[in-house]
Amino acid sequence: MSESVKDYPAIKWRAGASRRESDNLVVEEPLEIRLDGRRFTITMRTLGHDEELAAGFLLAEGFVASRTEIVEVRRVRGSRGEPEPNALDIVLNLKSRALTERLRRNFIISPSCGVCGKASIEALQRRIPRLDGDLRIAPATILGLPSQMRDAQEIFSATGGLHAAALFSLPQPDAASLIVLREDVGRHNAVDKVIGHALMRDLIPLPHSALMVSGRLSFEIVQKAAAASIPILCAVSAPSSLAVDLAEELGITLVGFLREGGFNSYTHGERILM
Amino acid sequence: MSESVKDYPAIKWRAGASRRESDNLVVEEPLEIRLDGRRFTITMRTLGHDEELAAGFLLAEGFVASRTEIVEVRRVRGSRGEPEPNALDIVLNLKSRALTERLRRNFIISPSCGVCGKASIEALQRRIPRLDGDLRIAPATILGLPSQMRDAQEIFSATGGLHAAALFSLPQPDAASLIVLREDVGRHNAVDKVIGHALMRDLIPLPHSALMVSGRLSFEIVQKAAAASIPILCAVSAPSSLAVDLAEELGITLVGFLREGGFNSYTHGERILM
Repeated sequence: MSESVKDYPAIKWRAGASRRESDNLVVEEPLEIRLDGRRFTITMRTLGHDEELAAGFLLAEGFVASRTEIVEVRRVRGSRGEPEPNALDIVLNLKSRALTERLRRNFIISPSCGVCGKASIEALQRRIPRLDGDLRIAPATILGLPSQMRDAQEIFSATGGLHAAALFSLPQPDAASLIVLREDVGRHNAVDKVIGHALMRDLIPLPHSALMVSGRLSFEIVQKAAAASIPILCAVSAPSSLAVDLAEELGITLVGFLREGGFNSYTHGERILM
Repeated sequence: MSESVKDYPAIKWRAGASRRESDNLVVEEPLEIRLDGRRFTITMRTLGHDEELAAGFLLAEGFVASRTEIVEVRRVRGSRGEPEPNALDIVLNLKSRALTERLRRNFIISPSCGVCGKASIEALQRRIPRLDGDLRIAPATILGLPSQMRDAQEIFSATGGLHAAALFSLPQPDAASLIVLREDVGRHNAVDKVIGHALMRDLIPLPHSALMVSGRLSFEIVQKAAAASIPILCAVSAPSSLAVDLAEELGITLVGFLREGGFNSYTHGERILM
């Protein structure tokens, strides 16, 4: 059993009778992320791949623009020099003025036209370039992604408590190979870990890749895929309206309801060889 | 069709062939919440029940302690006096010093012992009293909650894109009646809307109630239920470790995997009449 699951006592009610039996539950713990030693944010996450989570979060949310801006991701040390299990410090190669500017940009939405989905999309368009390029994918390749993802989801089978995100490389239209799969109690965290993995290995941009997530597709998931220049984004369940609107504007092929041998394509279907 | 879903064109791939057909997708839009006219936060949400979402968020996160601290929840007005569809202002009956103190408390975690799940729980214990009382519930009543929730989930059936939260009153161990069901692209939002509904109707505390959510149970969902003094919390899927730890400390009966005629009880099973 990995450190990411833990045994808990449970009373199980089945067919009119109860029995005592333990259950493996996913471990959730807070992670504090510091930037150049200063507290930045705390997120609840599943243990494991913290460095990827922190790096992916910073890229996906626009606080860093590339791998070269990250000098080091290191554990915060306690008073006796021991590494803190739940705190990371990210050392940036970025002038403090540039960082301050990015922090301000990301926490303020222009008031000129009020708060709305259109304004949210325009704010992202100012920092994320539209994706194009000649990537093509066969429907059969798309249909094969869920089983590839399931095969890799060992933790999921053990606990039933996790969201998953999987990044695939697409060397040609009829082939997809898994680069990395990550799971987390938070759906955004699973995506951040995958993107952070790619970032720390200098794989970004990813013009020949697809990202698949369990569950639903929201605006924020599309934003994260776009920040990593991933042109194809698939989900087991439905996208939201704003997820589709953003994917359309940023040039991302959005696929939903990818299950049971079928899928729906909502935007940029020109990449799919129908 | 309500304003919370919108028609989008889609290409649907089924059984080796594609067809063009439109899909109803859930509308996701940003909501800006102001406190006494000052910008406080922006959240992405499904349209509808904004006042409940804002009020519930403030209670669940500890920014207000009771209904009496909220004077009014009103739409922000645009330059020509028109109501902004995506911005609310909450007028508080709270000294600005008390508000500043609460804002600081909620954004700072004591550094004395490092960041960890235990510290997160202790921080909540300082503001949320432990629940006790004599509430009892029959297993058959628990087993009946999912079908009551499904019956009320009309939007879900239309789009497949939403998380749901349902609040039930429990007048006696063998009876549960639905008080309110809310759905949202964000799981936390669905819970905030339900709690906000109860708050604005002066129903809190809720010593004879149960909350049921679709999907998984995280630390934050337990925190929100506890802030509304809801003693029984049920979910279709698995809880996280920290959700169980927090429920144990705050006196909440936590039920997971409530589906297909069975359930698992993780904490405070003494409320369940086995």
